[in-house]
Amino acid sequence: MSEAKREGQDAVLGEFDLIERFFSRPAGAARSRGDVILGIGDDAALLQMPANAQLVAAVDTLVEGRHFPIGSDARSIGHRALAVNLSDLAAMGALPCWATLALTMPSANGDWLRQFSAGLLDLADAHGVALVGGDTTRGPLTISVQLLGQVAPGAALRRSGASPGDLLAVTGSLGDAGAGLALIDGSCATEQRAHAEQLIRRFEFPTPRVQFGLAACGIASAAMDLSDGLVGDLPRLALASGLAARVDVDRLPLSPAIRAVAPPAQARDWALAAGDDYELLIAVAPHRFADLQAVAGKLDLGLTEIGDLRAGRGVTWILNGRDFAPTVQGYDHFR
Amino acid sequence: MSEAKREGQDAVLGEFDLIERFFSRPAGAARSRGDVILGIGDDAALLQMPANAQLVAAVDTLVEGRHFPIGSDARSIGHRALAVNLSDLAAMGALPCWATLALTMPSANGDWLRQFSAGLLDLADAHGVALVGGDTTRGPLTISVQLLGQVAPGAALRRSGASPGDLLAVTGSLGDAGAGLALIDGSCATEQRAHAEQLIRRFEFPTPRVQFGLAACGIASAAMDLSDGLVGDLPRLALASGLAARVDVDRLPLSPAIRAVAPPAQARDWALAAGDDYELLIAVAPHRFADLQAVAGKLDLGLTEIGDLRAGRGVTWILNGRDFAPTVQGYDHFR
Repeated sequence: MSEAKREGQDAVLGEFDLIERFFSRPAGAARSRGDVILGIGDDAALLQMPANAQLVAAVDTLVEGRHFPIGSDARSIGHRALAVNLSDLAAMGALPCWATLALTMPSANGDWLRQFSAGLLDLADAHGVALVGGDTTRGPLTISVQLLGQVAPGAALRRSGASPGDLLAVTGSLGDAGAGLALIDGSCATEQRAHAEQLIRRFEFPTPRVQFGLAACGIASAAMDLSDGLVGDLPRLALASGLAARVDVDRLPLSPAIRAVAPPAQARDWALAAGDDYELLIAVAPHRFADLQAVAGKLDLGLTEIGDLRAGRGVTWILNGRDFAPTVQGYDHFR
Repeated sequence: MSEAKREGQDAVLGEFDLIERFFSRPAGAARSRGDVILGIGDDAALLQMPANAQLVAAVDTLVEGRHFPIGSDARSIGHRALAVNLSDLAAMGALPCWATLALTMPSANGDWLRQFSAGLLDLADAHGVALVGGDTTRGPLTISVQLLGQVAPGAALRRSGASPGDLLAVTGSLGDAGAGLALIDGSCATEQRAHAEQLIRRFEFPTPRVQFGLAACGIASAAMDLSDGLVGDLPRLALASGLAARVDVDRLPLSPAIRAVAPPAQARDWALAAGDDYELLIAVAPHRFADLQAVAGKLDLGLTEIGDLRAGRGVTWILNGRDFAPTVQGYDHFR
């Protein structure tokens, strides 16, 4: 390859430059963490856990063409790769601390890597998370982030913690990311440009509810994040808690944007089944619901009661006062 | 799909069955760890760190067609996916404890998954490691394992710890996995079947030097694992320690098997440049070398002095008493 071509491609970079060049922050940087004893550049990272905390570990993978359209903005891919894991920690009520990155990509393109790392690191900075290790390999674009965090002993929110009589609530609004993806892939079109941009942004740059999850510890009885859609995820929370769930579909929180771009039945289907919103599904005792609303209010975040849990099994969906069988399914890679 | 066909394929499994079905161990199983507060099945795992230990985190990815031939034995793929990470922790002198798995695969085939999980979990059991979380996605076969471990404060072996005058040593023998891969892909052939099987096994089921790494803490001054070949890896250790390295290529430890299947120059090239042996490269002060040999002896593991470190930069290779420029390169995905 000619030197000019190399320059044009921002160089075909060696594997061992990549992580250090695009993902390292200088030691002592304003955003560095004092508990990172040894970060990127050795065989493994060394981290200092505080006394009296439990370690929380999550891993999630994004595959091109599955979790995001081919040719997506690299900054969005980087953001989402971390956001989906932040959402898992939010659902545990845990404080995110350190991440490692396994990045498989077809080639080492400097422009792409700059955008990707900016998307990932900007979100990491916003949550005080340090990227402490990584592995880059050549292959079809696949990104796995492993996120480590901390929670006070016994304080973590589990899917299994709900009791009969608990209310079910969700943060924010549902279906926006599904609408955004439909706008991106062209299966939905609208003249309402501002609304469309807002919905696409919900897909491309989801906001994990980390602060809410942290504040919900000690108030909520159970939590999980809605990554695969309510119809896919709620049965798992109900099963883990050994309870039946009942949801008033009319109460699912829909944003003004989704109402503006789609007819009610379509908006409802997205709210029920589209993943990628990364809102939290919460179970909470009725007498603690006001406390949880206060938490949400302080964070300027919506919190909507959508149903309840009771003895039994399965999920009952109610629409206009009648039983309703959703025709849409939650996202499952292998069904 | 007919029920018969389902049975024949061992069912096309839903994503949410996979990790629990193939990778979960029953709570309270003999091999379970008491420090896993919450394992597979929630948004994240909850783990109890001991007081007075530092957390060690590594991540490594295997991509089909890059790190192993297409159609490889699934048991070997599972073994290697964990082994490469165990080797990273061995190089830190850390005790491996918990792993998470990000498994991307084209389809959910029960037979394949049974073999893959057996390979991974057998090695996990052998090292007392618990698999505490995972994510399965559909896509080209790509496996990332994140491994978490523990090390006493200040005890970790780093690449940067070597001093001028330190000896360089390697565990075991070098080049065997490279020879094994050449035998698999047909670029090397031999009549010596027992030797060939031994070399192929070194590629397919590498033995990470975890016990040696643990015992080398407090004796060795620096360490790294040889995953990309000595010519690729040694310059990184030398650079991290701010030193020059000198290696007597004649001293590289070659197994009887590699000597039997290949002419000396070919065996030497594999020993220099083929990755995948997952032996450890160690720097040690001369007066501590006997202690390190005693450690190796107890583990029935070879330990060979191959050179030394001194003030300066770069690596000098000596063959038959003369400077030698290796014509082979260490493995780099993006060069």
